[in-house]
Amino acid sequence: MTTPAVPAQRSQVTRKDVARYAGVSTAVVSYVVNGGPKNVAPATEAKVQEAIRLLGYRPNAAARALKLGSSETIGLVIPDNSNPFFSLLAHAVEDAAAELGYALVLTNSAGNLAKERRNIRNLAARQVDGVVLSSVLMEPDLADLEAAEIPAVLLNHSADAPGFNSVGVDLAAGAKSAVEHLISHGHTNIALAMGTNTGNYFDGREQGWLQALAEAGLPEGSIVRSPFTRDGGYASGRRLLAAASRPTAIFASSDMQAVGILRAIHEAGLSIPDDIAVASFDGSAESEYCWPPLTTVQQPAQAMAEAAVRALLQTPRGHEPEHLIFPTELLVRRSCGCEKPFA
Amino acid sequence: MTTPAVPAQRSQVTRKDVARYAGVSTAVVSYVVNGGPKNVAPATEAKVQEAIRLLGYRPNAAARALKLGSSETIGLVIPDNSNPFFSLLAHAVEDAAAELGYALVLTNSAGNLAKERRNIRNLAARQVDGVVLSSVLMEPDLADLEAAEIPAVLLNHSADAPGFNSVGVDLAAGAKSAVEHLISHGHTNIALAMGTNTGNYFDGREQGWLQALAEAGLPEGSIVRSPFTRDGGYASGRRLLAAASRPTAIFASSDMQAVGILRAIHEAGLSIPDDIAVASFDGSAESEYCWPPLTTVQQPAQAMAEAAVRALLQTPRGHEPEHLIFPTELLVRRSCGCEKPFA
Repeated sequence: MTTPAVPAQRSQVTRKDVARYAGVSTAVVSYVVNGGPKNVAPATEAKVQEAIRLLGYRPNAAARALKLGSSETIGLVIPDNSNPFFSLLAHAVEDAAAELGYALVLTNSAGNLAKERRNIRNLAARQVDGVVLSSVLMEPDLADLEAAEIPAVLLNHSADAPGFNSVGVDLAAGAKSAVEHLISHGHTNIALAMGTNTGNYFDGREQGWLQALAEAGLPEGSIVRSPFTRDGGYASGRRLLAAASRPTAIFASSDMQAVGILRAIHEAGLSIPDDIAVASFDGSAESEYCWPPLTTVQQPAQAMAEAAVRALLQTPRGHEPEHLIFPTELLVRRSCGCEKPFA
Repeated sequence: MTTPAVPAQRSQVTRKDVARYAGVSTAVVSYVVNGGPKNVAPATEAKVQEAIRLLGYRPNAAARALKLGSSETIGLVIPDNSNPFFSLLAHAVEDAAAELGYALVLTNSAGNLAKERRNIRNLAARQVDGVVLSSVLMEPDLADLEAAEIPAVLLNHSADAPGFNSVGVDLAAGAKSAVEHLISHGHTNIALAMGTNTGNYFDGREQGWLQALAEAGLPEGSIVRSPFTRDGGYASGRRLLAAASRPTAIFASSDMQAVGILRAIHEAGLSIPDDIAVASFDGSAESEYCWPPLTTVQQPAQAMAEAAVRALLQTPRGHEPEHLIFPTELLVRRSCGCEKPFA
């Protein structure tokens, strides 16, 4: 303590004391402490910060949460934030939550159902105001969320989930557009590199691939299954290259798998797209910078995250749950055979 | 409420009530609610969950935090978790915190100093038990952290930060090893694609590049500067390719920049490593799967994250701050000219 004239007991210092010392309103102190929602002039902010330092003021978040019955925090459960698509979603969820004054508790399930359940339970015990769940399963076990009695939204979820708000994309339509594009390049032997973890659920990407082939009167190509990872895609790529009837085009259910497939094709000394064309799903930043750049079905991650947070925090209690399905956009780049001029 | 025999007022239900109803100890109820630290047999867990559901029990985290003076939460401030290196760090920090029973509040600064300061202040207002700060600056403004009086550790920080625990790598030694490796391939014109945001700080990667050239008696190559991003690297790559004295090798200060440089070289119709060799810094997953795979200086993200969390939560108050510097490892792949056989 550098100034003896100020109270010695930090715990007794209130926001009012800080306001009086700095010569501002308590609202201004609150803006400085919380970094918003309103801006404070730099000179005023400096005065408030100095008062906080001198008086040793520490706002008591726990007391505030007890009073409000809210921690102003939401929880996010994602399979793995080192997957770029999910780290993009996490970033967007954090931004959308911050916009509404909520902090984000991040939990990774590492692709593991037991860990996902533990994370949900943990968030419930912390009394977060809501949970955004992006499950490792296509059909998550929702009993834990129901038991927690905490509002929840399923993000990146394209099936119906009765009783829950959900946000996803039209997987089948997106996949179909990509496979139709490969067909338009003249391909007739188009394989599917599908992700696993889909349980008994008939994934929309598989449906869309099948539909596009059927409508064009083409035979079904090979299907190989792997985790939604670079390693998984690499293994799938090697299998498809070694197959008796090697495909001339591959549709991958995620960018991560496609990146692994590109590596397998490069290593085999084959050319993309001349020997084998590739298209994928997600629209991650990496899809733009791998070589060749991937033609991919872009999911609107930002808009989906914002919709999920809004549904979580701004849906009145007792409101009928909504299932929001966003459209996708086919980003056409080099891996399909389209030679785009560069800027 | 399905069972009229149980108390109607949820707020009055305690952990003791749940324990009595389920016929277990209050400790077991706590394990089930918190998902640990001890495991509970599935049958017992089911009984406890049923009691929680019937009684409408909700553990009160805010009351608990007020009592303990701790929210059992730590905050993480990173520049951008859609950068794979930082999402890897975030994942590792979350795992290490969970191991010790702490949840992680994630905040992104979007490469923006004002946002970083707001995030720190916000975390302080929430009374997290500590903050792991990976700053957008090489010389972060630590006044906010000091004012908050909350323990903090600087992660991914290689300079001395008096008064703070810090965890980083030996940037200069790592960069030197990569440039020496390029020199061993016979290169004499080696450019540096350096990141920005380093302020007036003389970055270790630039030092290491200079040292390696000086010790080999080689002239300084060109330096171009850009943000630590794919786009930044792409711009730097295009500039270096257009230079009067085009380099035969480029050392990039991050994998993200190197990925952008690879794209610029591909687009120019040049070969990597035959026309231009590339080496970089970080060791992210993407560096293994871009084409060709990058020779890169790997930072031990997992070990660094664990050390940061340990320093934050297990350093006794008043203990002298420590500056932990981890060694790096040069991962040799194809982009430098080493043709590694594939498995």
